[in-house]
Amino acid sequence: MFTKVLVANRGEIAVRIIRSLHELGIKSVAIYSTVDRESLHVQLADEAVCVGGPRPQDSYLNMQNILAAAVGTGAQAIHPGFGFLSENSQFAEMCQECGITFIGPQAQTIDLMGNKEHARQQMKKIGVPVIPGSDIYINNVNEAIEVADRIGYPVLIKAAAGGGGKGIRRVTDAQEMKAVFHEAQSEARLSFDNDQMYIEKIMENVKHIEMQIFRDRFGHSVYFPERDCSLQINKQKVLEESPCKLITPTERKELGQIALRAVNGIDYLNTGTLEFLMDQDHHFYFMEMNTRIQVEHTVTEMVTGIDIVKAQVRVAAGAPLPFDQSDIQLQGAAIECRINAEDAEHGFIPSTGQVKYLYLPVGNLGMRIDTALYQGATVTPFYDSMIAKVIALGHNREEAIEKIKRLLNEMVIVGINTNQTFQQALLTDPTFISGQFSTAYLEKQFLPLWKERISQDEPVRSK
Amino acid sequence: MFTKVLVANRGEIAVRIIRSLHELGIKSVAIYSTVDRESLHVQLADEAVCVGGPRPQDSYLNMQNILAAAVGTGAQAIHPGFGFLSENSQFAEMCQECGITFIGPQAQTIDLMGNKEHARQQMKKIGVPVIPGSDIYINNVNEAIEVADRIGYPVLIKAAAGGGGKGIRRVTDAQEMKAVFHEAQSEARLSFDNDQMYIEKIMENVKHIEMQIFRDRFGHSVYFPERDCSLQINKQKVLEESPCKLITPTERKELGQIALRAVNGIDYLNTGTLEFLMDQDHHFYFMEMNTRIQVEHTVTEMVTGIDIVKAQVRVAAGAPLPFDQSDIQLQGAAIECRINAEDAEHGFIPSTGQVKYLYLPVGNLGMRIDTALYQGATVTPFYDSMIAKVIALGHNREEAIEKIKRLLNEMVIVGINTNQTFQQALLTDPTFISGQFSTAYLEKQFLPLWKERISQDEPVRSK
Repeated sequence: MFTKVLVANRGEIAVRIIRSLHELGIKSVAIYSTVDRESLHVQLADEAVCVGGPRPQDSYLNMQNILAAAVGTGAQAIHPGFGFLSENSQFAEMCQECGITFIGPQAQTIDLMGNKEHARQQMKKIGVPVIPGSDIYINNVNEAIEVADRIGYPVLIKAAAGGGGKGIRRVTDAQEMKAVFHEAQSEARLSFDNDQMYIEKIMENVKHIEMQIFRDRFGHSVYFPERDCSLQINKQKVLEESPCKLITPTERKELGQIALRAVNGIDYLNTGTLEFLMDQDHHFYFMEMNTRIQVEHTVTEMVTGIDIVKAQVRVAAGAPLPFDQSDIQLQGAAIECRINAEDAEHGFIPSTGQVKYLYLPVGNLGMRIDTALYQGATVTPFYDSMIAKVIALGHNREEAIEKIKRLLNEMVIVGINTNQTFQQALLTDPTFISGQFSTAYLEKQFLPLWKERISQDEPVRSK
Repeated sequence: MFTKVLVANRGEIAVRIIRSLHELGIKSVAIYSTVDRESLHVQLADEAVCVGGPRPQDSYLNMQNILAAAVGTGAQAIHPGFGFLSENSQFAEMCQECGITFIGPQAQTIDLMGNKEHARQQMKKIGVPVIPGSDIYINNVNEAIEVADRIGYPVLIKAAAGGGGKGIRRVTDAQEMKAVFHEAQSEARLSFDNDQMYIEKIMENVKHIEMQIFRDRFGHSVYFPERDCSLQINKQKVLEESPCKLITPTERKELGQIALRAVNGIDYLNTGTLEFLMDQDHHFYFMEMNTRIQVEHTVTEMVTGIDIVKAQVRVAAGAPLPFDQSDIQLQGAAIECRINAEDAEHGFIPSTGQVKYLYLPVGNLGMRIDTALYQGATVTPFYDSMIAKVIALGHNREEAIEKIKRLLNEMVIVGINTNQTFQQALLTDPTFISGQFSTAYLEKQFLPLWKERISQDEPVRSK
C-alpha cells in the first residue's frame, strides 16, 4: 500500500479524498494555487505545495509543477479527483514515466473513452446498445429516409465534416426529410467541400441514467445501483439520486450486466461511470463514459455504505477489489443537492466572497455534507461554483426527501449567494416527487416556473 | 399520527429529537430555561416556550409549566429525552391525565424498573439471570459462608436495614468471613437495631454490556445488537461501541433472547435498555433497566441504520413497530466518543463559556456528530457537561477507530475546554484497541497513565 499520496485537486473533492487517505493511514499531500493558500484541503493535508497562480492552467492544470510536487514530497501516487487533469491521458502517462501511480484507468483507456465517436463504436462492437444512428455516411435523401425510418423520428442530419452548426437539421418526418435534406447537403458542400451526411436519433423524453462500475487488475468487476441524474441546467447536474424511482430491480440487473459487458470488453481498470439515456420504454442507450470519480459518487456511497475513493486507492495499489457484487446492496434511497455559489434569484450569476457565518446540520442519521467551506473561507471567481454537496439517505425515497428538506432548512451560509432556496423549491415540486422527469424538465419546465415565482416575490423556502 | 410534539429536554438530545420530528412531518415545540433562550433546540423548533429559570427544578423539571406549555401549544405528545423527567412516573401519569401521550413506557413500568431491588426480583422471576446474592436474610456466619460458597467470592455483606456504609464489608474467603461477619452484624445492630444481613456477589473483571429493545402495544418485540459501555469514569460512560468486540454472534442471539424474555415478561412498551454485567466466561447478569432513550442510542442507530427516535414516536402514536428482527442487521462497527465541556488536562473540572470558533468535520461516509453547539453558542454551568457525541461507523471496528480518530483530529472547538485530547489518547491505547477492557479499566489503569502523561507534558494528540 502507498504511504503517501498527492491529491491533484482542490475544494470539496480534495478534502473528501484526503479524509479517506487519512482513514487508510496514508499521508496526504495537497497542492494549491496562490489564492487557495487558506483552503480547507491545504489545512487538512499532512503537507501542501503551492503549484502556481490562480488560473487553472498555472496551477491545477500545471502538470510539470504537480509532478515536481509529487516527486519532491515522495508521494507514490496521485489522485486526480474530477475535472482538471482527471481525464488527461498525457498526465497519466507522465505519472507513469515518473514512477508514480495515477489513481485511475490506464492512459489508453482514457484516450479511447475520451473520443466520443470511438467510444460509441467500441461499445457497439462489444454489444452495448448505443444511441441509434446511420453508422455509415448518407449520400442521398432516399438513403436518409431509409435510415430515419429504421431508427425512428425525430432525427438529426449532420454534415460528416461538420462543425459550427453548418449542415445540421432537426427532422421530424419523411416529408420534412424530403424538404430539407438537399438544402442541408448543399450547405455542407459549400461549407466543407464534402456533402457526406450522417443521421442520429434525437432522444426525447429520456432520463440520464448512469452506472458506476469498478474493475480490478485481476478482472473482477462490479456495478453499483444506477443514479438518476436527469435534473440538469445547461448540461450541469443539479440534483442526483440513487436508485432511479422508475427502474425495477430486474431492469437494474439488466443494466448492470450491460455495464459489466462494457467494462470487461475494454479491460477497464479502477472506477468509472457509464452514462446512458433511458427512453420511455426503459431502453438504455450508451452516451459516454467518465473514466474518473464523479461529483455524484457520494449518493452511491451513501446508498450502499461503500467508500469508493478508498477502493480506488486500494485497487490502484494493486489490491483486488475489497468487495464483490453481493456486498453492493441498496440500503434505501439517497439524494444529493449540489449547492453552488450563485445567485439563483437573479439569473444564477456566480457569487464570490467570504463565508461570514456557516451552520451545517451535522447530527442525526443518514446525512452527509461534503464541502471545503468553513466559517471564514473565501469563495474566489477562479474555479467551479459548486461549493457543497448535501446528501441524505432514507429507508425509502420519501424519507430521503424529507431528510434533505430538513438539512436545507437548517443549513445557513452567510456571505455568498447560493442556490439553496432553488433546491428547496425543487424538492417540493410535484413532478420531482413523482420521479416522472426527463433531462429537459428542469430547464424547460421548472426553471420558467421558478423565474415566475421569483418575479412575484413569493416565499420559496419550504418547511 | 401526532401533528405536534413537545420536546421536554434541552441540548443535543432535544435537537436530535426535533430533527426526527421534522422528518416525520410533525411540528415541534421546544421548552427552555431563561439561560437557554439562544440554544439551538429553541432555534430549530417550530415553537418554543420558556418554562422557568436556569435551575433544573425551575424549568426542565417543572412539571406544571411543561404540561402548561404542551396544552397551550396544542401538542398531543411529549418526548422526554433522557435525564430530567424521562424516568419520572408521576410526570408520565400527569401527561395521561392531561390527555397528552408520554413517549415512553407506562407509568407502572417506569416505577417497577425504577426500584432496583424490585426490578431484580421481577427479572429473576421471569428467568433472567441476575447478579447472584443471598436472596434471603442471613442471621449467622455459617449461613453466610454457605451462601458465599454457593455464589463465589468475593462478596459484599450488607445490613438489610443498611445505609451510609454501616455494616458493609468486602469479603474474599471463608476465613475472612469468620473474622468480619460478627463485627459487621454488631455494627448493623448498633446502627439500625436490626442485625439481619444479606450477601451479594462482587462482579470483577466484568464488562458493561447493554441491550436496547423495542416493543409495541401489539406485543411485537425486537432487540438490537449489544453495546459495550465498559469505559466509564465515576460511573459516567465515556466511549461506547456496538457490537462488543468479544461477543460472538451466537452469544448476541442468546443475550437477545434473554432481553426479549425480560421485556415480554413485563409487557414493556416502547424502547428501553437492559444493562448487564458480562463476566470473563461471558455469562450475563441483569443489573438494571433504563426505561427511556439513552445517550448512546446513536451507536445503535449508526450500526443498524435505524432511527430509534422516529420509531419511538410512531409506536407511541399507536402504530406497530416499523421493523422486525430481520431488519435489524449489523452493518459494521460503530464507536461514539462523548465530548464533555471539561478540562481533561486539569482534573476534568467542568468548563463553561462561549464557543468562539467551531469546526465540525461533516463530510465523508459513516460519520455523525450530535451536538447543540454552534459558533457563538454558550455553555453554562447549569446542566450536564456533555456537549457533543462524535460517532463513526466502519465496515469493521478497525475502520471505525481510524474514522473516529480522523474526526477528532479535524474537530476544532475554541472557547471552552473539552476532553477531546483525552478521547484521542484513549483511541490509540493498546488495551482499548484489543477490546480487552473491563468496567474498571478506564478509572484504575488508563486514568493514572493519562495523568502521568499530562504531568510529563507529552504530546497527546494522535494522528
